[in-house]
Parts: sequence; structure tokens; C-alpha cells
Amino acid sequence: MTNYFPILSWGRSYSRAALSNDLMAALIVTIMLIPQSLAYALLAGLPAEAGLYASIVPILLYTVFGTSRALAVGPVAVVSLMTAAALSNIVEQGIMGYGVAALSLAGLSGVILLSMGLFRLGFVANFLSHPVIAGFITASGIIIATSQLRHIFGIDAHGHNLLDLAGSLFIHLSQIDWITALIGILATGFLFWVRKGLKPLLTRLGVGAGLTGVVVKTGPVFVVVATTLAVWAFGLDEKGVQIVGTVPQSLPPFTLPSFSPDLLGQLLLPAFLISIIGFVESISVAQTLAAKKRQRIDPDQELIGLGAANIGASLTGGFPVTGGFSRSVVNFDAGAETPAAGAFTAIGLAIAALALTPLIYFLPKATLAATIIVAVLSLVDFSILKRSWSYSKADFAAVLTTIVITLGIGVEAGVSAGVGLSLLLHLYKSSKPHIAEVGQVPGTEHFRNILRHEVITAPNVVTLRVDESLYFANARFLEDKVQARVAGDKAIRHVILQCAAINEIDLSALESLEAINERLREMHVCLHLSEVKGPVMDRLKKAHFLSELSGQVFLSQFEAASFLNEKVT
Amino acid sequence: MTNYFPILSWGRSYSRAALSNDLMAALIVTIMLIPQSLAYALLAGLPAEAGLYASIVPILLYTVFGTSRALAVGPVAVVSLMTAAALSNIVEQGIMGYGVAALSLAGLSGVILLSMGLFRLGFVANFLSHPVIAGFITASGIIIATSQLRHIFGIDAHGHNLLDLAGSLFIHLSQIDWITALIGILATGFLFWVRKGLKPLLTRLGVGAGLTGVVVKTGPVFVVVATTLAVWAFGLDEKGVQIVGTVPQSLPPFTLPSFSPDLLGQLLLPAFLISIIGFVESISVAQTLAAKKRQRIDPDQELIGLGAANIGASLTGGFPVTGGFSRSVVNFDAGAETPAAGAFTAIGLAIAALALTPLIYFLPKATLAATIIVAVLSLVDFSILKRSWSYSKADFAAVLTTIVITLGIGVEAGVSAGVGLSLLLHLYKSSKPHIAEVGQVPGTEHFRNILRHEVITAPNVVTLRVDESLYFANARFLEDKVQARVAGDKAIRHVILQCAAINEIDLSALESLEAINERLREMHVCLHLSEVKGPVMDRLKKAHFLSELSGQVFLSQFEAASFLNEKVT
Repeated sequence: MTNYFPILSWGRSYSRAALSNDLMAALIVTIMLIPQSLAYALLAGLPAEAGLYASIVPILLYTVFGTSRALAVGPVAVVSLMTAAALSNIVEQGIMGYGVAALSLAGLSGVILLSMGLFRLGFVANFLSHPVIAGFITASGIIIATSQLRHIFGIDAHGHNLLDLAGSLFIHLSQIDWITALIGILATGFLFWVRKGLKPLLTRLGVGAGLTGVVVKTGPVFVVVATTLAVWAFGLDEKGVQIVGTVPQSLPPFTLPSFSPDLLGQLLLPAFLISIIGFVESISVAQTLAAKKRQRIDPDQELIGLGAANIGASLTGGFPVTGGFSRSVVNFDAGAETPAAGAFTAIGLAIAALALTPLIYFLPKATLAATIIVAVLSLVDFSILKRSWSYSKADFAAVLTTIVITLGIGVEAGVSAGVGLSLLLHLYKSSKPHIAEVGQVPGTEHFRNILRHEVITAPNVVTLRVDESLYFANARFLEDKVQARVAGDKAIRHVILQCAAINEIDLSALESLEAINERLREMHVCLHLSEVKGPVMDRLKKAHFLSELSGQVFLSQFEAASFLNEKVT
Repeated sequence: MTNYFPILSWGRSYSRAALSNDLMAALIVTIMLIPQSLAYALLAGLPAEAGLYASIVPILLYTVFGTSRALAVGPVAVVSLMTAAALSNIVEQGIMGYGVAALSLAGLSGVILLSMGLFRLGFVANFLSHPVIAGFITASGIIIATSQLRHIFGIDAHGHNLLDLAGSLFIHLSQIDWITALIGILATGFLFWVRKGLKPLLTRLGVGAGLTGVVVKTGPVFVVVATTLAVWAFGLDEKGVQIVGTVPQSLPPFTLPSFSPDLLGQLLLPAFLISIIGFVESISVAQTLAAKKRQRIDPDQELIGLGAANIGASLTGGFPVTGGFSRSVVNFDAGAETPAAGAFTAIGLAIAALALTPLIYFLPKATLAATIIVAVLSLVDFSILKRSWSYSKADFAAVLTTIVITLGIGVEAGVSAGVGLSLLLHLYKSSKPHIAEVGQVPGTEHFRNILRHEVITAPNVVTLRVDESLYFANARFLEDKVQARVAGDKAIRHVILQCAAINEIDLSALESLEAINERLREMHVCLHLSEVKGPVMDRLKKAHFLSELSGQVFLSQFEAASFLNEKVT
């Protein structure tokens, strides 16, 4: 029971001290979340209030089902971008209205996450490699920042990849609204200064790291207040500055997603990708924060928590959500001790939705765009290209493909291409395992690659060390290697396969070993095995391979070599 | 040069003895191939002569480019079935006529094989696992045999999977032509008797194995002659028995495939599957026969040889071809020494196409169907189900899926599902590697699983042995495992990863190791590595991981444990 409802375990020992810490953290996170959630709603193409709604019930549900003590759930940049990309497709095709499609996307994503959690399928997310995620987030950050330029300059521009966006911006360049541009550029500049200038300044002035962090994170609130006041005071909305406008004063409404099979069919792939990307982002934040307090995160239960949060979002006027990096770090740094901090944040946001929305009537969209741009540009990091280039060309190829396709075509194509290519490259590598011919290092019992070391070999014995588990993709490769080595050298009478690095032999590989054994027998050559692992040996015994083997199985390579040498001499 | 034209190497040393052996083998293979090639053309849905044409120029081209000394190239059962399945789709959709589509399929398949050979992409075929092939061939055999029942009973019945075929046969059951059925059943029964009864009989009578084999293989020729004579003598063709009819007396004509992009687009997937299946069948026959004479097969050159043969087929009125099992074995047993035997076979078949076709005017289609049924039923072998069940459930699942989907939906879906499932299961397995906690076996330097052996452990040191290379799909799994183990046990101060079975660490896994190192540091736990392989160590050094590592790298696990024990005491 406490497995599926972690709240039962931390809730029982909830203390007064934890309560006051949680309340403090909630206050800070609430202040930070108000502009952020409005901005991400804008990014997802939804009305501003959807951002608030998406941060209330989802947080409450994660509080009940999640295992992380500090994770703050709500709209995040990359998922909002993916939402916009998925929904604009649907709307362009005239299948459904934007708002209800957003609810359905959140609901579908919730069901996918929940099922993955219940059926313990969290491992699926592992196929998204670190370099692919890094490349994807960098490319997404660039697309998001570019897409917000239209709000900064007050022009019309659309597109879901860098090429379309840049082209569209260029075409509409003549429509620039200069007052909007002034607000946008000032707000962006100020927020950059808060990050890059204010932070070092406060640190130099001896302000503690915790307080500095809080001040920096509340920078957006200051900009929101200042620009809203400016628009109100000078009536800029009547001079062409686009504002948020009327936002209903209400708790999150009860909403129902559409169950149209046509819509759900179209949303299935985007919902799956959003689920996986959201889960991976969320779990890595959760793991990092949990480690700092030696706490444990259960990945499958996290899927259930995020699934519940997304289903909650779809029933209360929201859109897809996940655990966000910056807000979780703020929550943690501000002293949140339990998920109750999340619940208090939800209450704070509910009050904001009920009472404070008239205050943001004059908030310019350019300000929200500025907060988005500054937030996402910190995600852009091309160092992964250099790092992967120097470490492994396969990883580099996967990153580069992800970045190029995400920028050039779009988010779904980019992440799919990255995952596909990394799988193909992995399979390619494991289909051509390293097979070394080894010999004895003089005076030792060690055997090493004959190409790299001065070793002793016998003319009639060949020892091959296979550095990979044997399975269908590399089984025939081994057949070719052995046949090529033996067919060319008539002196060979014994072939030893040193199996220390073989963790598994599947049925295809077993049949290849049988074929190798049989073909070597035709050539009057014996096949021997050495250093076979226990579980592999059990399998081979079960399959009667050992009784057909023309040679023997030796516990160690040294034993094998000594025995065969004695037999010859 | 001799790499791409193997004929240059064996051709130079061609002797008179080899010539007479090759001529003898060619004669026997020619006699065997005449009914077989007619029958497979029928199976592919093409006129009988296409089978002869597909056996002439392709063999000559393989002679020039192939590396196997004994492989006989031409139409084979499974590829002919796949051809029929692919073409009927095209024709149903009204894209192109049957014959020209067959030429295009062969041409496309040839280009695919040739490119794979030139770009050394032969490893792609390795993803077709042995169990999937076994299941696929068994299911195909059943479909082929069922599809031929319509010729045996002289009724109309169509379909490309077992369900459609059986339903269609059942519906048309009332149309049975009893004379056709008599011929069909007698021919089938006789051919079975030749295989099951005559062979043991001859062996008991002391006839040599070679001669017995030849007699058994020429059984079909006898049936062809006998039933043709019967139809001619009794005028059975006028009583409803379907016959081959007029076959043009001609050398293979020069033909051109269609280059319609629409057609080629539709044929791409079937052509790819036909190429892969054909290549896998062919190479395994070639390897088996080559081993008997300690010869070497070059898989990439084989692709070129088969590619050339298929392009040849498309230019001379044929259809997709590959190296056939039974004919190659006959060729080998009959004493073929070089690919020249193939060239002589081609000449024999050319003479047949020019001169003998009037003789098969009265040949009943039921006889050809009987030869097909008897040939393919020897391919049907369900023992793979039992074998894979007892060896590995993952392999069993792949076989079962392949068989069920091939029978229930069709050949392309079946083989794709089998390959897809085996890849998924492989990735699933490698995403959850075996990670054992190990301890020291008393009195030795060995470390074994604490769950299986009585071992010594220290309360503040945990050693984990990972039995798999670390890559993106299992990197996060390791993170979870380590965190779960350490978070629950406050006494732990040192974690050692024993890396002897780790053949590779990709960038994702490196980042996971960095995360593990960092998180353990937060918990005041040191991370150590032991028994890291040379190439893996090189990579880690390049990435500066070792300088960030909180603990040390030890050459052996024993050294690591001793050092940490001393430090503590």
C-alpha cells in the first residue's frame, strides 16, 4: 500500500518543523511559478490561465503518488514546445479544437505514464541516451527562444522548426511594433543581467548563496510587475502592445478530454514522446536531489506519480506537465522537506488563480516571452558535441543527428531520429564484436592479444577471445571469423574460444557454435572452450552442446593451453 | 581484382580432372533442375518458362562473381512464395502487369544485394536470428504446400496466408477435378515413397550413398515423364486436367524491368526482405559446403554474386533467385569442383529451353505441384519450438510469433514481426543486466555472488559486479541499482564496481558513472573500480573521469578489497 501511496509513509511522521520548512519553500516556489506557468501556457499556444491550472491539481496528485521529496511538477519548456508542435498539427488538419486537444494530449500522456508504471515498463525510457537528450534539449531551447521572438517584436510568425520560424520572422520583419520591442528587449536584457550580473554582484557583497538564488529566481516577478505597471500607466495596450488580457477568476475548472479515436490516434506518438521525454527529465532531477539527502527514488512509482499528475491536468483545464528542473531546485534550496511543500504551492497558486488574475490584465506578452527566452537559453549547450566527438564517434553521430533534425524538421522527428540512430549504431557495434587472437605472456598465466603483446603461441593451436555476449546479431560474424582463420592455415588442429567476456549465448549463437564445431570437425580441427561463466555453462549443458563438442571445456585458458601443449609434445 | 572476380583465381588453375567432374555434376543438376525450375515458376505465379530463364543467366553470373565452389543459384521455394505474395499485391492494386513486376522485383533485389556487398553491409542479415529463420521457413513451407493443393485438386483457390488459403480451398471444394486429383495424389504419394521408402530400400540393397542420393533426387524427373505420357496417351487435357501447354522454344529473352517510381516504392520492402532471406539461406548452404573442403566464403562477395545473379534474372525474363539448398547439395555430392559446374548447368538448361520445351506441353500442373509439396514439406520442422522453449523463452517467443504471424497474415509480416520482436527482446535483456553483489570466497582471491556462495564481506564496503557492457539502455538501471543499495544502508562507505565483464562504456554510461560518483560523494561514499579492461580504461582516461573519481581504480578485485580492509582496520 505504501508502495503505491508514498504519502502514507512520509505523512505519518510529519513534524511541525517540516511543516514550517515546507511552507517557506512553497511561498518562494509559488512566487516563481506564477509568471513561469503563464509563460509556458503561452509557449504551448494556450491561454495564460491554463498554465496556472496545470500547476494546481497535478502538483496535488504528485504529492500523493510521487516518491521524490523535492520534485515540483508543472508545465516545463520542452514539453510545452512539444505540446504546441503536436497540437498545431491536429488543428491544421481540422480534427479538433486546440484546447480540448491539449486536454486529450495530457490525458493520453497520463495513461501512457501510468500504464508504464503499473506494468514496470520504465526501462523503455532508457533507450533515450544521454547524448540524444542533451542534443534534443539544446535544439529545443533554440527553437523555443526563436519562437518567442515574435512576442518580443510584436509580429506574426509561426513554425515548428528553426527554418520555418526564421523564414516566417524574416518575412514579417516590417511589421515590428517598436514599443513592444522596447519592452521585450529591456525585459530580456534585465533578466540576463539578473543571472549573469546580479548573481556575482550579490555573492561579492557577501549575500549567502541561498538568498542569492532566491533573489535571482524572483527576477521574473520583478519584471512582470514593472512591465505590467508600465503598460497600465501609459496605456501601451492601446498603442499596439499585446497583453494577456482578461483571465477568468476561478479555481481550475472541471474539464473532459475528447475520446475521439481519430484524435487519439493522431496524438499517440506525440503523447508517447512527451511522456518519455518528460519522465527522463523529471527522474534525473529527482535522482540528483534525492542523492543529496540519501533518499531513494522508485522509477516505476515516479511513472505512476507523473501519470496521475497528467491525468489530473487533463481533467482540470491543463496540458502536459512533468517535474521541472529549475523549480525543483528552488524548492529544494528553499528547504522543502516533504512533498507537502508541493501541496502548499498548489494552494498558493489556487489563491492566485482565484484572486490575482485581474492584476495581470495589463501584463505584456513580450515580458512572458522574455522570461521564456532567458530560461531556455540556459538549456542550450553545444559542449555535448565536443565532448561526444572526443569520447565516441557513434555518440557524436547520434547527437548531431538529433540536433540537426530537431532544428530542421521538428521535435518529434528529431528525438525519433536520435533514438533510432543510437539503437542502430549500438546494434551495429555489437554485431561486429572485438575478437582477439591471444597468446601466453611469457612467464605468466595471462593471455593477451597477439597483435599488441609479445606472446607465446603454438602453430597448431589458435585461441580466440570474444569480447561480447554472443547473440543472433554477431553469431554469424563469429562463424565467418573462425572459418576465415582456420581455412587459411592448414597447420591448425585446435581452436580454443576464450569465453570470459561472454555473458550470454542465445539460441542463434548456440547454433552457430554447433555449426562451427561441425565445420571444424570436417577440417579435422577440435573446438575447445575456456573460462565459460556459470550461467552460460548451465545453458550449454541443457542444450547438449557439450556432448557434441569435439574438444573440451577448460576452467582457465592457462589450463587449456598447457593441456593441449602436453598432448602435442 | 581477384577479390571482385573470384573466377580469376580458380579459373587459372582449372584442370582436365576438374572439367570432367564438373561436367558430370552439371548433367545431374540439369536433370534435377528442369522440373524444379518449372515448378517454382508456377509457385511464383509465372509461366513455366520463366523458371528455366531464371536458372540460366543468373547461374552464369554467379559463376563469375560468387565465392562458393558448389552453390547452385536459381529459383527456390521460399523466395518464390515471397515473390508471389509481393506481386499479387501490386497486381491487385493495378499498378503494373505481373511479369514486368517480377522483373522489377528481381532487379531491385539485385541492386539491394549488390549495394550491400559493395558497401560491406552484409551484417544486416545477421539481425535475422536462426530461430526466426527456422520458424519462418517452417511456416512458409506450410503455406506453400497448402497453396499447391489447388493444382493437386484442379480447383481455384487463392490467398497468401494459411487462413485465406484454407478458406478459399474449402469454398471451392465442390469443383474438384477427379482425374487431376488422381494424378496429383499418385504423384505426391510416389515422390514421398521415393524419399521415405526407396532411399532406405536402396541403402539396404547395398547401393552407395552417392548413387542413392542421385536416384532419389531424380524421382521428380520420372514422375514428370510418366504423368506427361499419361496425359498425352489418354488425352486427359481434354478431360479437364490442366497442363503446362505451349512453352516458347527460345533462349532467355532480353527483357527490361520497369523503373516506375510507384512500382519500385511498393516493391522496396518485399525486395529487401527477399534479398535478406535469400542471402541468409544461400550463405549458410555455402558455408556448410565450403567447410567440408576447408574453403573460404567471403560474405560480402557472396552478396555481389547474388546481386549480379538477380540483376541477370531481371534482364532475361526471370524472377528473384538465390542459392538453393537441395540443388547445391546435389551439385556438391555429384562432385562439382568449381563454379564451372554451374556454367555447364546453365548450358544444359539453355539447351532444354531451346529444344525440350515441346516435350512438356502435356505436363500436368498437378505433377509440378506434387514436386513442390514434397520438396517443401521437408522444410517444415516444428522441433525448433521445443528446442527454443527448453533453451530460452525469448527465442521461443520470437519463433512462435514468426510462425503465427506468417501463417495468419503473410510472409512479409511474419518475418518482420520475428526480427522486430527478437531485437526488442535483446534490447530488453541488455537493458536490465545481471548485477551481482559479490564477496570474497574464504581462503581464495576469488569473488562470488553473495546470494549463491558463502563469502566474506565487510559492512562498509559493497562490491557490485556488472555482467554486461554499459551503454545507454542500461546506464540508468545501474544508477538506480547503486542508489537503491546505498540509500538503504547507512553503514556503507565504499562502493566497488567490478568491471571485468564490461567490454564498452558509451557516453551515456560514462555520464551515469559520473552521476553515480557525484551522488555517492554527496552521501560521503567513495566509488572505486576494479578489473577495468584496457580499451575501456583508455576511454575513461580520455574523458577525465578518473580524475573526478572519489575512489581508486584497482587492477584486481582482491587488491581492492585488501586495500580497503586495511584502510578501515
